Amino acid sequence: MTYCVGLMLDKGLVFMSDTRTNSGVDNISTFSKMFVWEQAGERNITLMTAGNLATTQSVVSLLDERSKEPAARHPGILEAKSMFQVATLVGNTLKEVIATHAETGQRADAAFNATMILGGQVEGGAPRLFMIYPEGNFIEASFDTPYFQIGETKYGRPILVRAYDPTMSFEEAVKLLLLSFDSTIKANLSVSLPLDVHIYEANSLEPGAQFRIQPDDPYYDRISNDWGVALREAFGQLPDFTFPEGLA
Amino acid sequence: MTYCVGLMLDKGLVFMSDTRTNSGVDNISTFSKMFVWEQAGERNITLMTAGNLATTQSVVSLLDERSKEPAARHPGILEAKSMFQVATLVGNTLKEVIATHAETGQRADAAFNATMILGGQVEGGAPRLFMIYPEGNFIEASFDTPYFQIGETKYGRPILVRAYDPTMSFEEAVKLLLLSFDSTIKANLSVSLPLDVHIYEANSLEPGAQFRIQPDDPYYDRISNDWGVALREAFGQLPDFTFPEGLA
Repeated sequence: MTYCVGLMLDKGLVFMSDTRTNSGVDNISTFSKMFVWEQAGERNITLMTAGNLATTQSVVSLLDERSKEPAARHPGILEAKSMFQVATLVGNTLKEVIATHAETGQRADAAFNATMILGGQVEGGAPRLFMIYPEGNFIEASFDTPYFQIGETKYGRPILVRAYDPTMSFEEAVKLLLLSFDSTIKANLSVSLPLDVHIYEANSLEPGAQFRIQPDDPYYDRISNDWGVALREAFGQLPDFTFPEGLA
Repeated sequence: MTYCVGLMLDKGLVFMSDTRTNSGVDNISTFSKMFVWEQAGERNITLMTAGNLATTQSVVSLLDERSKEPAARHPGILEAKSMFQVATLVGNTLKEVIATHAETGQRADAAFNATMILGGQVEGGAPRLFMIYPEGNFIEASFDTPYFQIGETKYGRPILVRAYDPTMSFEEAVKLLLLSFDSTIKANLSVSLPLDVHIYEANSLEPGAQFRIQPDDPYYDRISNDWGVALREAFGQLPDFTFPEGLA
């Protein structure tokens, strides 16, 4: 499994992904699920992937190859004129890769499927955030739904729903995402550190801050511990239930 | 879908279940998923069900019939000598009902399946809590795993993991369960109020407090609102992330 979140803030886009891949519980590896393409001053694009690793690696390799060989199919991810065109390109590539494997006669319920979060900015447009489905179509984040999650999304959703605020700073956003990831990691063995982070400042069109949070990261440890304490305190401060009369 | 939780506390057992059943998103009904059998001074048994409604109703009806006709199959749920025997009886009944439908040639991926939480006490034994699988086998709550969830379990799990404490009062336990249900209800349309609650005081062997929390319950509304505020405050008080040097 996997957990990736893309947040759209007033200040820009924040991406976080885990790095655990597993086939069953005893074939566990670390693979990055975050891929960044950038041309300073012109575009900055981030892709995060969940699902079949062979499929997602194949999609990324195809996008990469095309970006390196200008003579290859147009438009490449570095040539598309807008984020919408980039999303279309990624969606089509994803659909093609899945179809290729599905057509070889291998059938394994949805086993080649993958879902992706794509975000970034191309000169002349605003920052945009998309979720791309295995069928190649996609939806875009909006004011009402300003973030996307893929993979093991449920454990980490309540805190996002409660604490997300589009005006938050990047520092607060990383804190929020770490709490969301911590809830997931505590509950699901198939999601794990290290975590990849990419922060893109709106309208900068420059490489954003990109770093990896390691398993022994002191800030992560502190947030994880302090959040447990803070939750229990907040819980203690809420008024207790009182039994309906006659039932105590 | 469904959400039910059974908690084992030092003071006794607390059960909470939602009441929404749905077939797709446009065939929604309210059904209780909590069933209590009691004989004051002798036993108190609670069963909560998740899964195919026809299956769970059939299981409950069979258990009921047998409890009313002493001449029917032995031991009935009111005759079994221990909670272990009750769990065996419920498990066997569940397995039989599923097998009956499966054998008619109707095939619909796991559509007749159901999972159950069973808890209570029979004179001479301690309070016990079980999770019963469609195959008829079951596991028992222990010191390490002192609660069971069935149905849509993921959204409401992080708060249980963080705030559960076996020494908590019944009033605190209801508060905790309401927060866990609130997180689930906020995220998943197929779980909804009213909520059924049953509280069994350890070693009382008496009918426990049983009541229903309605959609307009003022305590639920308050807890739901206050928890949002408390979470955001707790979030605000945690130290913000600081970017690695050179990346700010």
